[in-house]
Amino acid sequence: MRKSIATVSLSGSLSEKLTAAAGAGFDGVEIFENDLIASPLNPEEVRRRAADLGLTIDLYQPFRDFEADPSDDVLDRNLRRAERKFAVMERLGADLLLVCSSVSPAAIDDDALAAEHLHALAERARRHGIRIAYEALAWGRHVSTYDHAWRIVELADHPALGTCLDSFHILSRDSDPKGIEEIPGEKIFFLQLADAPRIAMDVLQWSRHYRCFPGQGGFDVAGLASLAVHAGYAGPLSLEVFNDVFRQADASRTAVDAMRSLRALEDSTGLAPLPAPVVPAGVAFAELAVADTEPLHGMLAALGFSRTGRHSAKPVELWEQGEARVLLNTAPSAGHSVPSSGAGREGPALAAIGLETADPTASVRRAEALLAPVLPRRRTAGEAPLDAVAAPDGTELFFCRTRWPGHATWTDDFEPVPHEPAEPVGISRIDHIALTQPWHHFDEASLFYRSVLGLHADESLDIADPYGLFRSRAMANADGSLRIALSVAPGPGDPGVPLQHIALATDDAVAAARRLRERGAALLPVPANYYDDLDARHEPAPAELATLRELGILYDRDEYGEFRHFYTATVGRFFFEIVQRTGGYRGYGAHNATVRLAAQHSNVTR
Amino acid sequence: MRKSIATVSLSGSLSEKLTAAAGAGFDGVEIFENDLIASPLNPEEVRRRAADLGLTIDLYQPFRDFEADPSDDVLDRNLRRAERKFAVMERLGADLLLVCSSVSPAAIDDDALAAEHLHALAERARRHGIRIAYEALAWGRHVSTYDHAWRIVELADHPALGTCLDSFHILSRDSDPKGIEEIPGEKIFFLQLADAPRIAMDVLQWSRHYRCFPGQGGFDVAGLASLAVHAGYAGPLSLEVFNDVFRQADASRTAVDAMRSLRALEDSTGLAPLPAPVVPAGVAFAELAVADTEPLHGMLAALGFSRTGRHSAKPVELWEQGEARVLLNTAPSAGHSVPSSGAGREGPALAAIGLETADPTASVRRAEALLAPVLPRRRTAGEAPLDAVAAPDGTELFFCRTRWPGHATWTDDFEPVPHEPAEPVGISRIDHIALTQPWHHFDEASLFYRSVLGLHADESLDIADPYGLFRSRAMANADGSLRIALSVAPGPGDPGVPLQHIALATDDAVAAARRLRERGAALLPVPANYYDDLDARHEPAPAELATLRELGILYDRDEYGEFRHFYTATVGRFFFEIVQRTGGYRGYGAHNATVRLAAQHSNVTR
Repeated sequence: MRKSIATVSLSGSLSEKLTAAAGAGFDGVEIFENDLIASPLNPEEVRRRAADLGLTIDLYQPFRDFEADPSDDVLDRNLRRAERKFAVMERLGADLLLVCSSVSPAAIDDDALAAEHLHALAERARRHGIRIAYEALAWGRHVSTYDHAWRIVELADHPALGTCLDSFHILSRDSDPKGIEEIPGEKIFFLQLADAPRIAMDVLQWSRHYRCFPGQGGFDVAGLASLAVHAGYAGPLSLEVFNDVFRQADASRTAVDAMRSLRALEDSTGLAPLPAPVVPAGVAFAELAVADTEPLHGMLAALGFSRTGRHSAKPVELWEQGEARVLLNTAPSAGHSVPSSGAGREGPALAAIGLETADPTASVRRAEALLAPVLPRRRTAGEAPLDAVAAPDGTELFFCRTRWPGHATWTDDFEPVPHEPAEPVGISRIDHIALTQPWHHFDEASLFYRSVLGLHADESLDIADPYGLFRSRAMANADGSLRIALSVAPGPGDPGVPLQHIALATDDAVAAARRLRERGAALLPVPANYYDDLDARHEPAPAELATLRELGILYDRDEYGEFRHFYTATVGRFFFEIVQRTGGYRGYGAHNATVRLAAQHSNVTR
Repeated sequence: MRKSIATVSLSGSLSEKLTAAAGAGFDGVEIFENDLIASPLNPEEVRRRAADLGLTIDLYQPFRDFEADPSDDVLDRNLRRAERKFAVMERLGADLLLVCSSVSPAAIDDDALAAEHLHALAERARRHGIRIAYEALAWGRHVSTYDHAWRIVELADHPALGTCLDSFHILSRDSDPKGIEEIPGEKIFFLQLADAPRIAMDVLQWSRHYRCFPGQGGFDVAGLASLAVHAGYAGPLSLEVFNDVFRQADASRTAVDAMRSLRALEDSTGLAPLPAPVVPAGVAFAELAVADTEPLHGMLAALGFSRTGRHSAKPVELWEQGEARVLLNTAPSAGHSVPSSGAGREGPALAAIGLETADPTASVRRAEALLAPVLPRRRTAGEAPLDAVAAPDGTELFFCRTRWPGHATWTDDFEPVPHEPAEPVGISRIDHIALTQPWHHFDEASLFYRSVLGLHADESLDIADPYGLFRSRAMANADGSLRIALSVAPGPGDPGVPLQHIALATDDAVAAARRLRERGAALLPVPANYYDDLDARHEPAPAELATLRELGILYDRDEYGEFRHFYTATVGRFFFEIVQRTGGYRGYGAHNATVRLAAQHSNVTR
């Protein structure tokens, strides 16, 4: 279907917004009135600019507080006001005007009067070749539901009058969208899509600050869009998103995020299927960009990793233990391909993740269809092909098939290096990777990982750092063999130190911790107070408590099982975690993150 | 009264929080459990640290989900958990434990059982010399109002059991606080104070993220505190504020802001009166710090200002027109005395404001009592004394009495300079001064201006910039002769360009604009689309509309009168506005700010 975006969803001047929308492949735009008013371009110039960019102007909006005021004088003034806007629309070349339900205290609850007024408006519009789309605001004075708005449109019965459906206004009120099927498709003049996180707050504030693109919030926007299409709606899918973050973000990037959300919506509803996701089945490797490998050598060795290979063409080392593989890349070009979270080059930074996939080519096709930047293939003479895309934070995602009999794989590019095998500590694989996201790309990243890789997302959590709050959200595949934990500082500034880490899985955290301590590995100290509280909360057996306390192991449990975990000291802004899941524990020890963050502050940054 | 603060209200490690609380003059603290758990200091060390700083530990909190679970097993485990906490409290030297009403789904609605459980808890506490303060959480499962909590405490009837009142939990539910007077004062074991902006949202989220210090939100916290004191409460006034911004702000500074809020509360309730505010009666001068006066000379001259004086000891010029006085200060030390909003030295920055006051000494006494940093008196041989304090953003506030027969005044320090008087354009005085605040000091600044200067505040407004949203709040004295408009970018990062400006009052904006245009003054262009919309919205007479359009004057009206205004081009991040108020218009043309911001972006920064 055709795809549009309201100019209010993007930041910048009107001209910048149009350029960004066209760049992301949108077919049209809704012109938000304030964007036009504030623009130095006159309507004819805007019309030309849009046409040059291949954009249609699908809607002009909003026209407020029109209907159902019993004063004839007010009606006359409102019609005069409308004529002024019709004149602007004719200059713009826009033929559809959004009228939203009145919030005026003077409006009365009289559907017949509202219909009569809208009929008069539509008749005047018709003379200008303009149509009217009437929409119920969730906080409209008397008309606040889509079915009510539709009843008035039906009553008014004018060919130039239809309704506009907005997923936010419908779903934020918990209205049942099934009634959309009762509306003749040709009377749905416009469909505006927006998602929002499920938060209980004043609906006006919620609408004006917290909307997000479909798939980034908690509403079933796709289901609603399907209903409208099945009812016969044939206009564009249009995004109207008021969001404080998008207002400050780069418009071109937001537009791509927006287009990805519509493509994912069309895919999930079957309106326009994309290549199916190939859900990764684990982590092939994690690659750290480092200026100097030295600080990590000791740590990796202490953790029981052996340096098993060296890349034949690049300054990259391979370290292995069980199925856990870590690459250290000292190439100056290593690392994020787009501006990143600021992890910087001063210490190790997670630059790439190898994802185990059954079909790397299909994985890239899916990613490409969802507008992930495909990176130049890493392939030199003798190298195996490696397909990769860039995640929103710049992390490179490589689609790998580590064991693929008869095919070259990425490990073939590494020449074995003679090594004294390290004494392992029982690490079997990478349990999860924790990436700190730039604050204004968190929702984008969350949609990206879910839609491109087919992961499912946990709820967002707030975690208290001594110097701020972090929002955290984990993504995983069905069997938990791939887990990515995204975190972000929701507030401005730099609340403490955003850290990245790799969590390594073991079957015996106690044995691993004991061996690491024997080797003198630098582990993060855990305050004694933590264990006093753990005793009060969870009543572990005294012997177990003593062991946890002695070894600095943290503990958590959920309804499925238990979690024992501990951390290395940080190197720059990076550290390792060692985790043991028993009995199907699903979390990440979030309860303990506050203690970890405080310890990291007092041991590293202060 | 004694003053306490909960450690959760301040950022940093527990040790940093204690230091900040003591530094701001608090008598005691509430220890928030997670702060202790995450601290490397053991309870004995915390006790010693607090004692060294002269702080008592007034409360340990919170103890959750204790009462009214019918399972004996759960009761046993809860009592065991409490014993563990009593042990920690004995080590801390804390003798009061906050128990908040249960949110457990297993709790039943049975006051007798809740009272029985709390009686058992209090009896055990008593053996340790500990008392229990039971508090109703606004979202408690069965107990969510303070009067209900008090009924249960009364029923339990144990000397070691009392109630804790928290202004947020009471006022967020719109409970009538009058019932506090019915509670015997000695059974109010603790009083926690927090304010909050009036926003309709889930009360738990509201409580955890948006609390603020008394006087910074919309609740009558002072009235509630008075009721408790009149009921006989003799414990500390204690601030418990969960706030995302404070979590990231400097703890010492937040602690001072907190103490100022309690002193203002004690003053306004008569509990501990401070020197009365001397409300300023106007702006004596506005001082701009500039690296170079040249860019402003042309603009001031075009605006009809004459350079009338030069400071006898400092590189400061005085420019005058009517009662509007602007100082240009090129001293390298000019400008903000504390880290500021980042207006920087690259262009003019508002460094100081002279406030007309009937009694400069009394003004300073008030400011000092409210912890405003008093600046070293500007006085050299032959100079008039000038009393000044620093506002939270570093702006220096000078208390002046420009015309004071028989006394030296600040104007005496300026030597007249020979000048060709500029042809005035009808500027009579400074209408308002707009200061952009650092994002994390907005509420602090708002409380500062209100409490120190006795100004009243308008509601906060959101204003859309092409690259973000601004929050804006104006403060004024009763007759509008002093107006200060504070604005802030509520989100992270730098949303567009934070600008400062001085608004100059005229009785005839049309004449002023015409004269300025004749002189070729650099004015901000207003898009033609603005006038098309103005026509639709306000239906000005065609001749008036033509004049406004021709001269680039913006227009607004409210129920009291009309507003005509226009802007100069920006110099660096500074500009002038010329405003004409007629008929008692009270606003600042906020509706037009979006157009102004867009024009400034397209003309200056892009």
